[in-house]
Amino acid sequence: MPDAIDLNSDLGESFGAWRVGDDEAMFALVSSANVACGYHAGDPVTMLASARLAVRNEVALGAHPGYGDLVGFGRRALDTSPAEIAAELLAQLGALDGVARAAGTRVRYVKAHGALYHRLVADEWAAHAFIEAVAAYDPALPVLGPPRAALEQAADAAGLRYAREAFVDRGYVADGSLMPRGEPGAVVDDPAAAADRALEIAETGAITADDGSRVELPVDSLCLHGDTPGAVLIALAVRSALERSGIAIEAFA
Amino acid sequence: MPDAIDLNSDLGESFGAWRVGDDEAMFALVSSANVACGYHAGDPVTMLASARLAVRNEVALGAHPGYGDLVGFGRRALDTSPAEIAAELLAQLGALDGVARAAGTRVRYVKAHGALYHRLVADEWAAHAFIEAVAAYDPALPVLGPPRAALEQAADAAGLRYAREAFVDRGYVADGSLMPRGEPGAVVDDPAAAADRALEIAETGAITADDGSRVELPVDSLCLHGDTPGAVLIALAVRSALERSGIAIEAFA
Amino acid sequence: MPDAIDLNSDLGESFGAWRVGDDEAMFALVSSANVACGYHAGDPVTMLASARLAVRNEVALGAHPGYGDLVGFGRRALDTSPAEIAAELLAQLGALDGVARAAGTRVRYVKAHGALYHRLVADEWAAHAFIEAVAAYDPALPVLGPPRAALEQAADAAGLRYAREAFVDRGYVADGSLMPRGEPGAVVDDPAAAADRALEIAETGAITADDGSRVELPVDSLCLHGDTPGAVLIALAVRSALERSGIAIEAFA
Amino acid sequence: MPDAIDLNSDLGESFGAWRVGDDEAMFALVSSANVACGYHAGDPVTMLASARLAVRNEVALGAHPGYGDLVGFGRRALDTSPAEIAAELLAQLGALDGVARAAGTRVRYVKAHGALYHRLVADEWAAHAFIEAVAAYDPALPVLGPPRAALEQAADAAGLRYAREAFVDRGYVADGSLMPRGEPGAVVDDPAAAADRALEIAETGAITADDGSRVELPVDSLCLHGDTPGAVLIALAVRSALERSGIAIEAFA
Repeated sequence: MPDAIDLNSDLGESFGAWRVGDDEAMFALVSSANVACGYHAGDPVTMLASARLAVRNEVALGAHPGYGDLVGFGRRALDTSPAEIAAELLAQLGALDGVARAAGTRVRYVKAHGALYHRLVADEWAAHAFIEAVAAYDPALPVLGPPRAALEQAADAAGLRYAREAFVDRGYVADGSLMPRGEPGAVVDDPAAAADRALEIAETGAITADDGSRVELPVDSLCLHGDTPGAVLIALAVRSALERSGIAIEAFA
Repeated sequence: MPDAIDLNSDLGESFGAWRVGDDEAMFALVSSANVACGYHAGDPVTMLASARLAVRNEVALGAHPGYGDLVGFGRRALDTSPAEIAAELLAQLGALDGVARAAGTRVRYVKAHGALYHRLVADEWAAHAFIEAVAAYDPALPVLGPPRAALEQAADAAGLRYAREAFVDRGYVADGSLMPRGEPGAVVDDPAAAADRALEIAETGAITADDGSRVELPVDSLCLHGDTPGAVLIALAVRSALERSGIAIEAFA
Repeated sequence: MPDAIDLNSDLGESFGAWRVGDDEAMFALVSSANVACGYHAGDPVTMLASARLAVRNEVALGAHPGYGDLVGFGRRALDTSPAEIAAELLAQLGALDGVARAAGTRVRYVKAHGALYHRLVADEWAAHAFIEAVAAYDPALPVLGPPRAALEQAADAAGLRYAREAFVDRGYVADGSLMPRGEPGAVVDDPAAAADRALEIAETGAITADDGSRVELPVDSLCLHGDTPGAVLIALAVRSALERSGIAIEAFA
Repeated sequence: MPDAIDLNSDLGESFGAWRVGDDEAMFALVSSANVACGYHAGDPVTMLASARLAVRNEVALGAHPGYGDLVGFGRRALDTSPAEIAAELLAQLGALDGVARAAGTRVRYVKAHGALYHRLVADEWAAHAFIEAVAAYDPALPVLGPPRAALEQAADAAGLRYAREAFVDRGYVADGSLMPRGEPGAVVDDPAAAADRALEIAETGAITADDGSRVELPVDSLCLHGDTPGAVLIALAVRSALERSGIAIEAFA
């Protein structure tokens, strides 16, 4: 059993007058905040507010780059080239890191968003372009993503630290992938159940899949969704359960 | 007479498939390149290409932030708040600085674009917000702008270095402001005439205004337009005239 | 006392994944819906959903064009030219009218949004450009705006119908303009008070200003805000009060 | 041999200050202009200028909708849903049709752009969503696309007119698809060769493929590229060759 684990969440996903999520509450509950960088969400004023919340709550600020698709919230696959993936990552990472200076902090890690996240899990060429760009920015910057991803292999090959995450509110299938949304058990919205799953993953490094088998999840971080109706309650339950079990909440980065 | 002077130009103002200016030629002629950061022009791939041209030509890379108004090319006044001016500057500066790392360089100075440039000349509150953000990013980063600007006063007050520029292809009136476009003599498009004006400013620190009076222009840099039809010819003529007169072309930053 | 009056509200102001306002509830309470057309808010899928709500609730669909400034929600003045005002209006009006066809309806009137609204009240040249564009689209399309506006004069001169509106949840000063937000009484958020004001305006064609004087408000429509916390309660109170007083709620267009 | 054939070209693809193509020259040479609608290119002022050029040159104005991806110029596949394809088409079609009214014309047909064009050729579900939206806008509006496309089948099923086009400056393979760019013969940039191919297609309804076989191309329109360096010379050569052979240039719509 680990002494500590990280809790991360996608935050700072408002845009201009449009607000999502209860960032004030969520920043107080996580140890790492994946903050949108302006491409799928997050204008500069929102980025600055997020960086200030990170400082106030002693949370590690992470860059959360996505496709340049505001109306699609970065959730739609976009056929960008390796050169575009690399340059857009650098622009987003730099933008948040620049804004963060005014809040007295800096970006401490990178985690991709939405359809870009899925591409980096699946496609070696994309993972390679992304990792090369992170290394060009700062080879000491860790990357957060799921286990068994093309991104992890690319990070390993480049000598970058790769931190692994699991989802406490999603069901897993036996091969370690997430259950498709829509299937029973794909989404866990009961705080107590999510807390149990968080404990199971943190304590055993594995989770029970939908067929009863065990899926190895040797992770550094647990991902909490930040924008669902019950997000804050789930985060509270998960954090409390971990702390009661003697597992501290600490940023991985 | 100075030993050296800087030549700066707005470059990297393409966007996606849309190209403007002959950047290959202009980067070879200037010592400082004001490179668009994605808000009024300049996508990440274009920014990276510009940073590489800066490295190859040993040109100082400058951030050229503007209003977030692609269709207006940052030329239309937009009523942003001080908080927006500051946060948008940091995001743009950081974005270019991030992309620049992959080209092996970094941003060496800041010069505002278009309608934002004009606002920072005129409005103290805007100049203050802008300078405060530059200082938060890096207090050693110089700011480039015209003499007699609110921006210069704000930079002085904050202890930031302020470099002054003059325009070799624009006519001046007696109070030191530019002649309104449309008036005879407002725009100098003859390369020889522009070269003469560049020499006059570099050698005497002043220019003859439209009424024959002398306008003090104690400048560190001469601005060349990069996107006009004759831009390259004017840049060539100016550079040659200065060098023939024993004035080297050197980045101010 | 009139037999009927219109209730209008700015609706359809979501954008992609970002939701604002309780449109389901508000469409059931108004007779005219000012629907964003993609420039300050409102992507095509949102526009289509709004047009369907208009059909289902027998509400007149209005085009609600704004400046092309998503991050600023169209609330920041942008220095567009008359040609831009005209062309952008036509593009927005046409876009919503095109989407509306798939819902079985069409645009029935036009009301500008935010900073564009304020410009059209104040600036003759802008009002003229706007009205000329509406007339080019369809000279039978009415325009909704406040009394005593440059826009009304331009509409009159062009032979376009101009419908006037008043705000039930804003205080007025003696000259007929709105009290600046921040002053006591500038914003009326008590449903009963808003309903009283709605009745006063509908029944008398005037409202008591902050200094006790009477401001003429001979209006065709009462504007309800759609995105404030108490919006639905205010709309309910206003609608009920009017109906109880024998004033029917009917679209002006 | 037909009495007449249509020449179409993608025009109006400038955006704000960024200009592409020699639209003045090209509008004088084609009979149908596919005009960008603001999503991949073409702001409202550009749209209006294009509509005016269409009127002045008696050219049929076509809507040229694309993905909402300015920086990618609509050339990158974007994973939009059927509902998004339909609503975005209606918004773009309506926008151009609205702007066109101020020029005294209207949209006379629809042709998709770039990656959306390719999707509508290949994917039945996308073709169906697109055609349904065109029919909702105006069931008398013809759709332009290649032969043997999912889009043609969807148009036929819905009772919409489908006009077919061939590319005079692209090589074909035996199955009727275009040769991949980069292969020898994939792009025809010699005006005389393009004119010969145009004549061959117009006169025989077929073209010689790269393997010497004959590909049926029973087309209503020949597509000329508008933004390549030699675009105007190719258009001139094609138009002249057709007219000398007694084939008039006439809009299909």
